[in-house]
Amino acid sequence: MTRKLAELTGPQTLERLTADSVLLVPIGAIEHHGPHLPLITDALVAEAAVEALVPAAVQAGIDAWQLPTLSIGKSDEHHWASGTLWLNATTLFETLVDLGRSVATTPARKLVFVNGHGGNVALLQVINRELRRRFGLMVFSTGALQIPAGTGDDGPDELGLGIHGGWAETSIVMHLRPDLVHPELFARNVPEEMTTYEHIGFNGRPVTFGWLSDDFGPSGVIGDPTGSTAEAGKALFEYGIGKGLEALAEIDRFSLPPRAGSGAP
Amino acid sequence: MTRKLAELTGPQTLERLTADSVLLVPIGAIEHHGPHLPLITDALVAEAAVEALVPAAVQAGIDAWQLPTLSIGKSDEHHWASGTLWLNATTLFETLVDLGRSVATTPARKLVFVNGHGGNVALLQVINRELRRRFGLMVFSTGALQIPAGTGDDGPDELGLGIHGGWAETSIVMHLRPDLVHPELFARNVPEEMTTYEHIGFNGRPVTFGWLSDDFGPSGVIGDPTGSTAEAGKALFEYGIGKGLEALAEIDRFSLPPRAGSGAP
Amino acid sequence: MTRKLAELTGPQTLERLTADSVLLVPIGAIEHHGPHLPLITDALVAEAAVEALVPAAVQAGIDAWQLPTLSIGKSDEHHWASGTLWLNATTLFETLVDLGRSVATTPARKLVFVNGHGGNVALLQVINRELRRRFGLMVFSTGALQIPAGTGDDGPDELGLGIHGGWAETSIVMHLRPDLVHPELFARNVPEEMTTYEHIGFNGRPVTFGWLSDDFGPSGVIGDPTGSTAEAGKALFEYGIGKGLEALAEIDRFSLPPRAGSGAP
Amino acid sequence: MTRKLAELTGPQTLERLTADSVLLVPIGAIEHHGPHLPLITDALVAEAAVEALVPAAVQAGIDAWQLPTLSIGKSDEHHWASGTLWLNATTLFETLVDLGRSVATTPARKLVFVNGHGGNVALLQVINRELRRRFGLMVFSTGALQIPAGTGDDGPDELGLGIHGGWAETSIVMHLRPDLVHPELFARNVPEEMTTYEHIGFNGRPVTFGWLSDDFGPSGVIGDPTGSTAEAGKALFEYGIGKGLEALAEIDRFSLPPRAGSGAP
Amino acid sequence: MTRKLAELTGPQTLERLTADSVLLVPIGAIEHHGPHLPLITDALVAEAAVEALVPAAVQAGIDAWQLPTLSIGKSDEHHWASGTLWLNATTLFETLVDLGRSVATTPARKLVFVNGHGGNVALLQVINRELRRRFGLMVFSTGALQIPAGTGDDGPDELGLGIHGGWAETSIVMHLRPDLVHPELFARNVPEEMTTYEHIGFNGRPVTFGWLSDDFGPSGVIGDPTGSTAEAGKALFEYGIGKGLEALAEIDRFSLPPRAGSGAP
Amino acid sequence: MTRKLAELTGPQTLERLTADSVLLVPIGAIEHHGPHLPLITDALVAEAAVEALVPAAVQAGIDAWQLPTLSIGKSDEHHWASGTLWLNATTLFETLVDLGRSVATTPARKLVFVNGHGGNVALLQVINRELRRRFGLMVFSTGALQIPAGTGDDGPDELGLGIHGGWAETSIVMHLRPDLVHPELFARNVPEEMTTYEHIGFNGRPVTFGWLSDDFGPSGVIGDPTGSTAEAGKALFEYGIGKGLEALAEIDRFSLPPRAGSGAP
Repeated sequence: MTRKLAELTGPQTLERLTADSVLLVPIGAIEHHGPHLPLITDALVAEAAVEALVPAAVQAGIDAWQLPTLSIGKSDEHHWASGTLWLNATTLFETLVDLGRSVATTPARKLVFVNGHGGNVALLQVINRELRRRFGLMVFSTGALQIPAGTGDDGPDELGLGIHGGWAETSIVMHLRPDLVHPELFARNVPEEMTTYEHIGFNGRPVTFGWLSDDFGPSGVIGDPTGSTAEAGKALFEYGIGKGLEALAEIDRFSLPPRAGSGAP
Repeated sequence: MTRKLAELTGPQTLERLTADSVLLVPIGAIEHHGPHLPLITDALVAEAAVEALVPAAVQAGIDAWQLPTLSIGKSDEHHWASGTLWLNATTLFETLVDLGRSVATTPARKLVFVNGHGGNVALLQVINRELRRRFGLMVFSTGALQIPAGTGDDGPDELGLGIHGGWAETSIVMHLRPDLVHPELFARNVPEEMTTYEHIGFNGRPVTFGWLSDDFGPSGVIGDPTGSTAEAGKALFEYGIGKGLEALAEIDRFSLPPRAGSGAP
Repeated sequence: MTRKLAELTGPQTLERLTADSVLLVPIGAIEHHGPHLPLITDALVAEAAVEALVPAAVQAGIDAWQLPTLSIGKSDEHHWASGTLWLNATTLFETLVDLGRSVATTPARKLVFVNGHGGNVALLQVINRELRRRFGLMVFSTGALQIPAGTGDDGPDELGLGIHGGWAETSIVMHLRPDLVHPELFARNVPEEMTTYEHIGFNGRPVTFGWLSDDFGPSGVIGDPTGSTAEAGKALFEYGIGKGLEALAEIDRFSLPPRAGSGAP
Repeated sequence: MTRKLAELTGPQTLERLTADSVLLVPIGAIEHHGPHLPLITDALVAEAAVEALVPAAVQAGIDAWQLPTLSIGKSDEHHWASGTLWLNATTLFETLVDLGRSVATTPARKLVFVNGHGGNVALLQVINRELRRRFGLMVFSTGALQIPAGTGDDGPDELGLGIHGGWAETSIVMHLRPDLVHPELFARNVPEEMTTYEHIGFNGRPVTFGWLSDDFGPSGVIGDPTGSTAEAGKALFEYGIGKGLEALAEIDRFSLPPRAGSGAP
Repeated sequence: MTRKLAELTGPQTLERLTADSVLLVPIGAIEHHGPHLPLITDALVAEAAVEALVPAAVQAGIDAWQLPTLSIGKSDEHHWASGTLWLNATTLFETLVDLGRSVATTPARKLVFVNGHGGNVALLQVINRELRRRFGLMVFSTGALQIPAGTGDDGPDELGLGIHGGWAETSIVMHLRPDLVHPELFARNVPEEMTTYEHIGFNGRPVTFGWLSDDFGPSGVIGDPTGSTAEAGKALFEYGIGKGLEALAEIDRFSLPPRAGSGAP
Repeated sequence: MTRKLAELTGPQTLERLTADSVLLVPIGAIEHHGPHLPLITDALVAEAAVEALVPAAVQAGIDAWQLPTLSIGKSDEHHWASGTLWLNATTLFETLVDLGRSVATTPARKLVFVNGHGGNVALLQVINRELRRRFGLMVFSTGALQIPAGTGDDGPDELGLGIHGGWAETSIVMHLRPDLVHPELFARNVPEEMTTYEHIGFNGRPVTFGWLSDDFGPSGVIGDPTGSTAEAGKALFEYGIGKGLEALAEIDRFSLPPRAGSGAP
């Protein structure tokens, strides 16, 4: 039976959903990913992850549901590149507020953003709290796929900088949709100077900074797709889904006190 | 080869798209459709229409492309019903402005909203002009499927009032996704008093009015799904696609003078 | 006794208005209408229509009231032309929301936008529903004057394309304010290519499109004022008022269930 | 010949207006004025003032023009009273920005808000500068009528507190529209405690404060209409017009350096 | 014991504040003040005034509290000058609404904006009322320092036009922070033509107008700092504080009826 | 000589700042910190950090400047607590955009937000990119003080959950402003259940979630201030400043290509 919320009827949502239901929203991006990957990469990965996670979670006893994919995200860092479809920060903010307000009319109280695009992360963190305060929901955000870091499996020649169109992402798309990948155009573009910083960095460093993808060269790639393979992609995907299931199990047993939410901004 | 824009790479959009390209955006809704139809009805129909139209149009020599589906629309008339996911008018407005601004960075100049939800129509008409003025695009909006009116094929017992969850829509979903239809819950809800008005009406009458779907009874249906069949749905769908192709041929040869757009609101 | 709402005192509105009162708001535009018609054309027609309709409706037993004219509308299609005064779509949206919120503090529950400008139509349809949802009002929108179509009286040489500064509109202004019309500058500007489309069109066609008035030539006229006469204008005006009265009689007996409105966007 | 801008055609605005033209915009309010004055009071006074000022100014060699009246203003202080039609501060702000942007497409560079409502004053001062910065206009705001203060002609029993529905305003409406005044309901409501403050006050005091009209009693009047007469109103009106003409003569010879304006907020 | 609200703990605000508490918010600007005064001038003066007023008011039996300084204001008139930090009118409006909403969660009901920047005055007057309507507060705005006008002490050679970087302001900064003043760069820039107007003026005249500070010359100064002295500044400051204390005493005994506020815009 | 930007004159900013200047903005919060810490905690720490960092950085050859403190941040998680002063996410967003637009008029190109409040982090990351895209700036965000984690110095009994009013923060305030700390009210409030999650967490975990500070008990504290000392606070502060200096040295040599910025949202 369907686990896609939108395939239910309205009245069914009243019967089938409860405060323990976990609603998963794939959110991605349609954005430039260099010459070798399709614009849809991030939306593809987010949707594929949710499509894998939901049945597995149900199998594990979690009342998980898939919501429609939000394909278009906040891709302002690629605004310069033909083909990028992007929402302003404020438009995405209002979209997600509207989504939270909508979900709050169902019996469900747990909403999880499963995110395929790094450029959405910070805004989702703002939204997590906004939706809790305004609508009393429990709201979570997570990357679509956790990547095994520091194992040599995260792109050995990327110096930890393979964040856009690099080895892991390219491998995953080769696994999911090999027809959309252009290996003949794989080209390394690693901003090696970034390794000279201890504090400033793309992820998990104490100093964050504002960058656009053409700040590191005209290709818009940050990473090294060379050596990507579908096999590696399959392994990365499965690893990520495994970790995602663990995360969903935690979300399932997580709780915060009920609250009404004020509705007001 | 793909005709989904988002399956191209960014650089491919520069090579493959031209000012003659016609970009089709399915736009729908996730909203209450009574006890017998899924929430996804309008998004489903819009996406199915575009998926049928694009290859047929390409076959006919039109450089047609499918853009990602905007599943969630302006369903304020069903805001009272659990399961409806909806954007405020202003949020949808900003979303579509952002989409137009994004498309304007590609070589394409023709954008077509293929709309599965009546509640989006007026806002799309506002947007048609907004995107032309601000970004210089040629922008079109059309219903996903034209329905053969006045032929007895538009729901004989509906008095012309089958606008939401009625005979035609139900039949079409029975054709597209029979597994999501609940015939045992078909129930006629036709606001017959509307036939006593000559000026006031839902569509194509000189006086429009603001209504919410529970203004006509708690079911939220406006129409009569009784007697809907997959066969009728198939015929309606094919009729609509045929008309849609005619419309695309007109859009293909249509032109307005080039203009830059001011960008500013 | 006055039938202009704004000529009442505040306390009188509590005594004189009831849930059966019908409040008419003339809404127009101040916009370029070619070299032969004044900027005020649309506001003039809307106001003249309401001034004719209200006393006639009262005569017919309808508790009708005239609200102040909203002269300035959404004339973005003429933004290029000196003299056009126009509101952004979002500004007009907020203005009309504020008006609805204001009206909701009176005993009246029926609000009718009597509209003289085609560029306002779609936004008014969005507002119809917005005001019902947010403030529980019954909200209607109608053209200021219905024009007898297909009778030869709608501009014989205009091919059905006389939508801005054409025969009917020019004739009506010659009837209402002959001093403001410049017959020596009448010049036909009919985008004849539009007749080659069956699907795409300005009005009542399945495919709408975004146009600016200078997309069809520098005059900004779409139609043929040649042959306009005050006599024809008088007949058109009277025909429209007659139809408007019929519409008001329907609005008077129309009802929807009471609802409170949430106030929230 | 007409001096109403909106009665010109678009092309005429290019010929008739110059950088020396002075455009007058009546701006008022539709708001509760107690039991004895009509809602339209402030819009009425503003419009009457402009209608008197423009021909007199033209007579005096000033290229003055009347723009359409903005009837509805920022009447949040009367939001509690049935019949008040009011715009939020932000809606009125955007409306006036749109008006400035529109005027900037004509050859005119001088825009004067002739204001009949105290609640608009501060917002107009914000707008004066906003329109200069964004559109390079010279923008002025002035009360519709200066009142001779401290002469005994400003409401002897009002202790200088006759700011809403008091002696002067009531007298002026008795002069302009005696049919809309209800002398049998004249009732003094003067917040006498305000005279005990030297710093805090309604006007021209160093400390301003936020008040709503029912903060001083349920009538919403602040002043004493007792003793108002049409004769006094006529004298006040003529005095105000005389002062207004002096002001227009100054505006006519006033100049600031040309500037382009950035357009941006 | 501290009289800075932000030095209390949250729970202390519940114990220490009452409906009689008077909360003072210094609000200034960081803006170009010519070559001789620092950008911080207006924020400096506002903060110094509050720091002097609060203990003196407490001494006088008023339950006064200092809130954090809002250093950055609406300095759009100096937007052209390097170093000016400024908020759009709408940003400052929303900031002050948020502040009012925050204060309304404490027991306090009296909020006073002590303002060091002329460009904030009108917006604060709009906010006074907005916060009363929305949050039921009593809200006051006052200049940080009243200046003894017409005594020869307000800049004898300034013709009453010393409104920005002139004699009084310069003297006060010389008193407060002599190290930040550059007397060698004192230069008179008085727009003498303004004295030829009786109606148009910067302050307290019936006609206000929109000006940017470089409309009167490239220095951005409006006034004459020549002859400024720390001694004069000390006298001016003390005079202003004396007047401010009188004003606070009035605010302390001032009251309006309790009201809840609607929260809504 | 001053290193506070706002103590310069406008013209001095043109002479003293260059593209290599590094502008530091302290940004904090005024929010409930439990019964033992003052509301000002986060603003205090941010400002103290910048006041220590700037002279040390100058000493180290970095052209560092202190901008005015933004005391009030996004404290929606404490909106329930009396005394919290907070900006909506969108208000803070617009404030920071206005600040970036202002800074872009100076010669400086490097802007660093030195942040004392966890609730600002995500929004600052959104802003980092927004300001780079719109104004071409290089924008960095960093915590005011890095804390030595995993050394036993980060609150031994806090299980890594001392994020609000806990051992480290309390110790630092005891170092900076012992007079504002209430040791008699120290009380442990550690949400121990959080240790049972591997994926969900407050910081640096793959799954983020929306929480309000009273979701973990009425005190609003998350951590254990017991055992806090001024000595520990001094050590933590000095460690953080040391790390901050290292970070500033990196920022100083960091560069991205010059770009103009589009200005547009």
